[in-house]
Amino acid sequence: MSETFTGLHEECGVFGIYSNVQEDVAAICYYGLFALQHRGQESCGIVVNDRGVMTGYKDNGLINDVFTQRVLADLGLGNIAVGHVRYCTSGSNTRANAQPLIINHIKGSMALGYNGNLVNAAGLREELELSGSIFHTTSDTEVIAYELTKERLTASSIEDAISAAMKRLRGAYSVVMMSPKKLIGFRDPLGFRPLVIGASDNGYVLASETCALDAAGAKYLRDLAPGEIVVIDENGLRSITDNCVDSPRALCVFEYIYFSRPDSVIEGSAVHTARMRAGSMLALQHPVHADVVIGVPDSGLDAAMGYAAQSGIPYGLGFIKNKYIGRTFIQPEQQQRENLVRIKLNVVTDTVRDKRVILIDDSIVRGTTGARIVRLLREAGAKEVHMRVSAPPFLHPCFFGTDVSNRDYLIASHRTVQEMAELMNVDSLGYLDVHSLDMIPDNYHAGLCKACFTGQYPLDISEAPDKMRLEERLTKKI
Amino acid sequence: MSETFTGLHEECGVFGIYSNVQEDVAAICYYGLFALQHRGQESCGIVVNDRGVMTGYKDNGLINDVFTQRVLADLGLGNIAVGHVRYCTSGSNTRANAQPLIINHIKGSMALGYNGNLVNAAGLREELELSGSIFHTTSDTEVIAYELTKERLTASSIEDAISAAMKRLRGAYSVVMMSPKKLIGFRDPLGFRPLVIGASDNGYVLASETCALDAAGAKYLRDLAPGEIVVIDENGLRSITDNCVDSPRALCVFEYIYFSRPDSVIEGSAVHTARMRAGSMLALQHPVHADVVIGVPDSGLDAAMGYAAQSGIPYGLGFIKNKYIGRTFIQPEQQQRENLVRIKLNVVTDTVRDKRVILIDDSIVRGTTGARIVRLLREAGAKEVHMRVSAPPFLHPCFFGTDVSNRDYLIASHRTVQEMAELMNVDSLGYLDVHSLDMIPDNYHAGLCKACFTGQYPLDISEAPDKMRLEERLTKKI
Amino acid sequence: MSETFTGLHEECGVFGIYSNVQEDVAAICYYGLFALQHRGQESCGIVVNDRGVMTGYKDNGLINDVFTQRVLADLGLGNIAVGHVRYCTSGSNTRANAQPLIINHIKGSMALGYNGNLVNAAGLREELELSGSIFHTTSDTEVIAYELTKERLTASSIEDAISAAMKRLRGAYSVVMMSPKKLIGFRDPLGFRPLVIGASDNGYVLASETCALDAAGAKYLRDLAPGEIVVIDENGLRSITDNCVDSPRALCVFEYIYFSRPDSVIEGSAVHTARMRAGSMLALQHPVHADVVIGVPDSGLDAAMGYAAQSGIPYGLGFIKNKYIGRTFIQPEQQQRENLVRIKLNVVTDTVRDKRVILIDDSIVRGTTGARIVRLLREAGAKEVHMRVSAPPFLHPCFFGTDVSNRDYLIASHRTVQEMAELMNVDSLGYLDVHSLDMIPDNYHAGLCKACFTGQYPLDISEAPDKMRLEERLTKKI
Amino acid sequence: MSETFTGLHEECGVFGIYSNVQEDVAAICYYGLFALQHRGQESCGIVVNDRGVMTGYKDNGLINDVFTQRVLADLGLGNIAVGHVRYCTSGSNTRANAQPLIINHIKGSMALGYNGNLVNAAGLREELELSGSIFHTTSDTEVIAYELTKERLTASSIEDAISAAMKRLRGAYSVVMMSPKKLIGFRDPLGFRPLVIGASDNGYVLASETCALDAAGAKYLRDLAPGEIVVIDENGLRSITDNCVDSPRALCVFEYIYFSRPDSVIEGSAVHTARMRAGSMLALQHPVHADVVIGVPDSGLDAAMGYAAQSGIPYGLGFIKNKYIGRTFIQPEQQQRENLVRIKLNVVTDTVRDKRVILIDDSIVRGTTGARIVRLLREAGAKEVHMRVSAPPFLHPCFFGTDVSNRDYLIASHRTVQEMAELMNVDSLGYLDVHSLDMIPDNYHAGLCKACFTGQYPLDISEAPDKMRLEERLTKKI
Repeated sequence: MSETFTGLHEECGVFGIYSNVQEDVAAICYYGLFALQHRGQESCGIVVNDRGVMTGYKDNGLINDVFTQRVLADLGLGNIAVGHVRYCTSGSNTRANAQPLIINHIKGSMALGYNGNLVNAAGLREELELSGSIFHTTSDTEVIAYELTKERLTASSIEDAISAAMKRLRGAYSVVMMSPKKLIGFRDPLGFRPLVIGASDNGYVLASETCALDAAGAKYLRDLAPGEIVVIDENGLRSITDNCVDSPRALCVFEYIYFSRPDSVIEGSAVHTARMRAGSMLALQHPVHADVVIGVPDSGLDAAMGYAAQSGIPYGLGFIKNKYIGRTFIQPEQQQRENLVRIKLNVVTDTVRDKRVILIDDSIVRGTTGARIVRLLREAGAKEVHMRVSAPPFLHPCFFGTDVSNRDYLIASHRTVQEMAELMNVDSLGYLDVHSLDMIPDNYHAGLCKACFTGQYPLDISEAPDKMRLEERLTKKI
Repeated sequence: MSETFTGLHEECGVFGIYSNVQEDVAAICYYGLFALQHRGQESCGIVVNDRGVMTGYKDNGLINDVFTQRVLADLGLGNIAVGHVRYCTSGSNTRANAQPLIINHIKGSMALGYNGNLVNAAGLREELELSGSIFHTTSDTEVIAYELTKERLTASSIEDAISAAMKRLRGAYSVVMMSPKKLIGFRDPLGFRPLVIGASDNGYVLASETCALDAAGAKYLRDLAPGEIVVIDENGLRSITDNCVDSPRALCVFEYIYFSRPDSVIEGSAVHTARMRAGSMLALQHPVHADVVIGVPDSGLDAAMGYAAQSGIPYGLGFIKNKYIGRTFIQPEQQQRENLVRIKLNVVTDTVRDKRVILIDDSIVRGTTGARIVRLLREAGAKEVHMRVSAPPFLHPCFFGTDVSNRDYLIASHRTVQEMAELMNVDSLGYLDVHSLDMIPDNYHAGLCKACFTGQYPLDISEAPDKMRLEERLTKKI
Repeated sequence: MSETFTGLHEECGVFGIYSNVQEDVAAICYYGLFALQHRGQESCGIVVNDRGVMTGYKDNGLINDVFTQRVLADLGLGNIAVGHVRYCTSGSNTRANAQPLIINHIKGSMALGYNGNLVNAAGLREELELSGSIFHTTSDTEVIAYELTKERLTASSIEDAISAAMKRLRGAYSVVMMSPKKLIGFRDPLGFRPLVIGASDNGYVLASETCALDAAGAKYLRDLAPGEIVVIDENGLRSITDNCVDSPRALCVFEYIYFSRPDSVIEGSAVHTARMRAGSMLALQHPVHADVVIGVPDSGLDAAMGYAAQSGIPYGLGFIKNKYIGRTFIQPEQQQRENLVRIKLNVVTDTVRDKRVILIDDSIVRGTTGARIVRLLREAGAKEVHMRVSAPPFLHPCFFGTDVSNRDYLIASHRTVQEMAELMNVDSLGYLDVHSLDMIPDNYHAGLCKACFTGQYPLDISEAPDKMRLEERLTKKI
Repeated sequence: MSETFTGLHEECGVFGIYSNVQEDVAAICYYGLFALQHRGQESCGIVVNDRGVMTGYKDNGLINDVFTQRVLADLGLGNIAVGHVRYCTSGSNTRANAQPLIINHIKGSMALGYNGNLVNAAGLREELELSGSIFHTTSDTEVIAYELTKERLTASSIEDAISAAMKRLRGAYSVVMMSPKKLIGFRDPLGFRPLVIGASDNGYVLASETCALDAAGAKYLRDLAPGEIVVIDENGLRSITDNCVDSPRALCVFEYIYFSRPDSVIEGSAVHTARMRAGSMLALQHPVHADVVIGVPDSGLDAAMGYAAQSGIPYGLGFIKNKYIGRTFIQPEQQQRENLVRIKLNVVTDTVRDKRVILIDDSIVRGTTGARIVRLLREAGAKEVHMRVSAPPFLHPCFFGTDVSNRDYLIASHRTVQEMAELMNVDSLGYLDVHSLDMIPDNYHAGLCKACFTGQYPLDISEAPDKMRLEERLTKKI
């Protein structure tokens, strides 16, 4: 998975801040989102709340392209803000889907940023449309906004409306939102996607990952519990746990393996350490005589360090990744495309020449990229290349906010390990055993969603096909 | 009114095309909107319909800034398109209000572009919000979209839904919209804003003004009747006249005086000729001995030609306007601001030196700009400056889609003509008599809205204050 | 000549300011150049001198595209500045040729902006190259800089060096330059190109045209005499007239007919008035029975007013030119190109329908554009179209800084007037008689260069072919 | 040295290609420069030679900002190209100094890209100025171009002219240039800066580092010898060794320690391996009891791996560097600047909490940045922090093309090691011993320039002060 994801479903990052004083909350949001950029490179947005007046800006692009000094200044001061980064998809005109979503309703305004995927969005949307609702976007966020608004008509507060609406939303969702006077975060009852709370100098911060707390200068307090609603306003922070259920959790294991930043800590377990541990277990499960262990940058480096430490085989620097690669890099002509891997990634020849090399990555996406990387190693003189993958093979689609349902990721589902090894031209190939996944986090963690590997979904997914048909219908660029 | 309008309410331009073949309808829309650019410089948008799939792009900026070659190419081919230009207001973050609006509802997609102002938007919006509706924008367009969608739930066709919804919409509206298979235009029963139909090589074109038909290579067929709905689809063009009423029309007289382009023809009457005629009548009503008649570019030039022809006093070129002035022009520092008029507008000294000058403009907005222009003339050696205004003084706010309600325009409402003359430092000042307005178009036209001059509104405006309060509430930049 | 010029040779605009105080001279330069934008749209530049330190910025593009608020701020304060606008040619990579040119030499720095063309540039350049000189640009400006530098090695001051170098420069040149402490302007002994001096609040201003003095808030003092050097420093303004000769002047008549802005005054004669007078004489020389006189915007409007006044036939508004046309306008596809004239220029039908029309322009460039304009008039119902051109036909190339040598302009040189009339499809065609040209300025002006009409060059042009070969050799984009 | 250099002197990267066929040499140049981007981020340029016609483009900015698809396409095809990347300095208006430099002279055109610094540039420049030369830039490149041009007047070929001119150039220079028909590289007789030759499919490639050969799809042939001139034309490659002398070489040791990319190989020795070895020796010279070895990304990682391997103490991932940091990142307000290090660099807490940490970097620039990094580690729970630097302290200025003369780098020159340790708040501090430097490359390499550590310069630097005064004089932004 050395390349970025591409596809329809999105993995996203959310951020929110509540301050007791009027200050440059947009700038703090900017730094928080900047730390979450790896969770979404397609579009980004910030909405600032200045005494109930919400001013927002969002566009396609990276945080530091979209938010210039002037755009940030135009957002002005405020005491609440929410921000969002969204996944990179192919369409250039999908600006309408950028978040946070700002809407007006009978009780005022709200702004929402969302990470996840609703299994029953199609049904909810149809029901809304049948009562005359109109939709500007194709995203679940608008469905959630409608559900909250409907409940808000009769509920005595926005948090009561959220609590009621959550009973109707099925799937993965971590939402950060604000009403005129409150910053609110809530997380689905199974806790698919992470969401954490931090304490800042003047109030509180909500974020998808702890690395964003660090960047925003906030101290980690705790993860939101699955099903929890957290409300922050002038009276401080309070928690609503009506929707917290006793069933097993379903935290996406891929947050540990790939999505989150290595310096983040999810539910008490450090991501870098979890990846090291995946590497260690891989060394135990698939040992091989070799001279050096290298990782594919950046996704395979942590596990490679774990494999090396466990096996006693030296860890080496196998590749240099060109750090100036960006969105705007010009693709070479067809005849030079072969060369593109080398432009992004160059072998450190001394590390691998005349050596038996163990190559670690966290997954195999398209065989072609992997095969090119292996070829680079052989051209540089590697005697043997043993590939080790720090996750099991993807066999089943994901319906909870990742792109794993994309066919590219399911390449392994109709091939034997031996066939994959031949495709990549490696001397041996080993995947992490699926039963090891629960041991990756610090404490044995039985509440992980591993459905993409096992096909055992933590939630009834019988409505998912409707959602997919809806997405197909709505994938008109609007 | 030598400067562009600024303010909250918008005057806009709409364009639509239906073609029997798959072609570059986006490009034709681009040329049409380019000819309508004077009706709105804030934002613009084009939506292309390719067999039901609607692809749109809209942004703040002028047509040829927003629509680059690449953006146009990305819109692709299609057989229907609608476009919109919107007025220049101060906010830079109001991109959400750009049109056309694209929405999905239970029966499919639609895209709407709108020119006008609803008097009862506040009431309609509140009613919608009370049933759980959410709003992404602050514009009337979204209210109209909701009303159409609601009616569409029970109507047998989109045109039936429009016909039913029009009974609830009160105010000025000229709308161009498309459903997956139809291009539709409709106009309010009083006909405040213009809307014309043209025949193109492969179908039909709808536009706010005939100059856009010319630019799009289409031949003028006729104006839509007030209250008329025109539907264009694979069966050709048909008209629905359910909402056409027998009451007097109320075409905005300011379309002749200022808004429309001089080369456009509205309801059979050429705009340039109407302005010439206003100048002629001004000469009859306010004669003065003088040596030359000049106009303030560009808005006063037509009337100046009419005044000169009627009075026999030679028409002269009084000013050169710098034609490179654009949005991005850097404002001078405070101490040089005095100089700004001269940077935009320079006197042709030979024309006015030692002369008695009649200076024509179509209105007086801020006295300050006018006073500066008069000062330029005196510095260039004009012996006398007699100002003539080719419209009556604004005395009452407009509620039908113009900015005349802005206080700047009502400067005359609490000043005598003599006080205004002193403010401008002119030797004499004369306004066009309000009774002459009906004679400006080719044929005596009793159906003009002159409310901004007379206070006699063609429609019950008792709901207007609600609308203004709503706008105040919503003028949060979202 | 309703279209902009295109070609290799450039017509340019120069501006300079000397202030007794440290101030925002860059901003004043900006406003001055903005008024001279019509003299060159390819590139522009400003150099500010802050106590001898010269900071410059130049780029391809229009003044208000290149000079953003930030770029202007970066230039900082100073007490001298020079600026330049350069003609629009096709190449996009000729940024190296943008001016002012800044160079260092043994005695310090200098910055030069230049308008004109040297006949003997090729010879001077070869001589310099033979002594080891290297050239970064293909422009004459660098040759002039070298000649000044060489003389400066032995001269006691920069003005002495200029005086000596001028004896070697043959051709048209109006130069504005600065040394660390002086603002200097000089003009070739025949005075081909204009250059004027104005007094500003804190010092002096030099500019190609008086309209730039107006924009910069300066009062016109006088034109530089042909051959004069004007030096402005802390001691005020002084004049050096060593190179002023007694021979007849050779002011380019096209400055009156086309290049300069109508509100400028050249050598005491107002440009608008000169053009009116050309129109008057045209009426006397080529009368015709007609109903209306119209001009092609913007170049034909002044002469049309003159023709109308002289003939007694009413002046009418024949066309509306879309004022939003800019550099970035997207060209239509081949099949729509026919339509492009109409997008830029639309007929005011009422003015010409069923009328005998006299159409005035200042020249005929490509017959094709003219023919399209005539077709527009006929489609709008004009009964007859009589074309009158307010200049004689171009028959000979220009070697003094205009583009008239371009073949497009010499279309008339191998056609009879009758053939031209047929090409344009007009009912009659008349050019201004060449002998009338001396009467266009206010006082009979025998010192005009009319070589493009007569072939009688005011200067030995035997070296010009070398220059043209040089340009061909150097037209490698560098 | 975790931050990028800033300062006047430049370190640069050069690239050149000669192809036997007409092809997209600009694209190959683009990929080559992209791999050399770390050698210069201020500006970049490419010049393409199409049968003697040289077309170039250069601007401030990174390769993939400056060279868009369109700019590359405009450069067109050719068979020779040269490219350049230049160091990041503060000025935004120094575009004039971007390279390659393209000039015309009596024998044709040439384009040069240069890496190095001439000690005697001031004297050469003065001599040239005294003969009337003018300078457009402040860079040595223009001096070299003049010297070549002068010799070319009498030499029989460009390579003879280079050979003669080299006898006058004193200092560090690796130049890649082209004449109308030849690609030429030459290197100063002491070989301060690297320059390598590669074989491509259709010809040859010259580059500062081997990583650029890899990116361009070329195979490494050899390094140019110090003093060698390599000429590539239709007859193939030939070498001129007139200026190769027998004295000891003086390859900049900092190319191994910091400048070059870890995957490059210089004079047979791999950079990553050299850095590992520096880390190993550091472990031997400054051992300490500790639990983990971490490096400051990216500059300290290689040496940290070497220290860990030698000491047996585990190598850990101490920091995550935000990979989206770019030029345009918005600096936080003063009160948040403290936080900036954390935004760029976040600690992986698990790696350091309750541990004794050895922290490796390749140099100490400003103590402040180092102190902040140490504070991050202590806040994350590190029990002890022992800093080890994989180079000796800088004590003397560099005159050969690096920024080490900058005062920031000489912070250690007036402090004891103990004082430095206190400044950084580390428990212990150790620098690499200066005598170890010769052992860093693969084979003991006596020909390294270590002057910045030892003060023993390989070249007479008595003229250097003149150069520094010249630079001060010319540091006017032009």
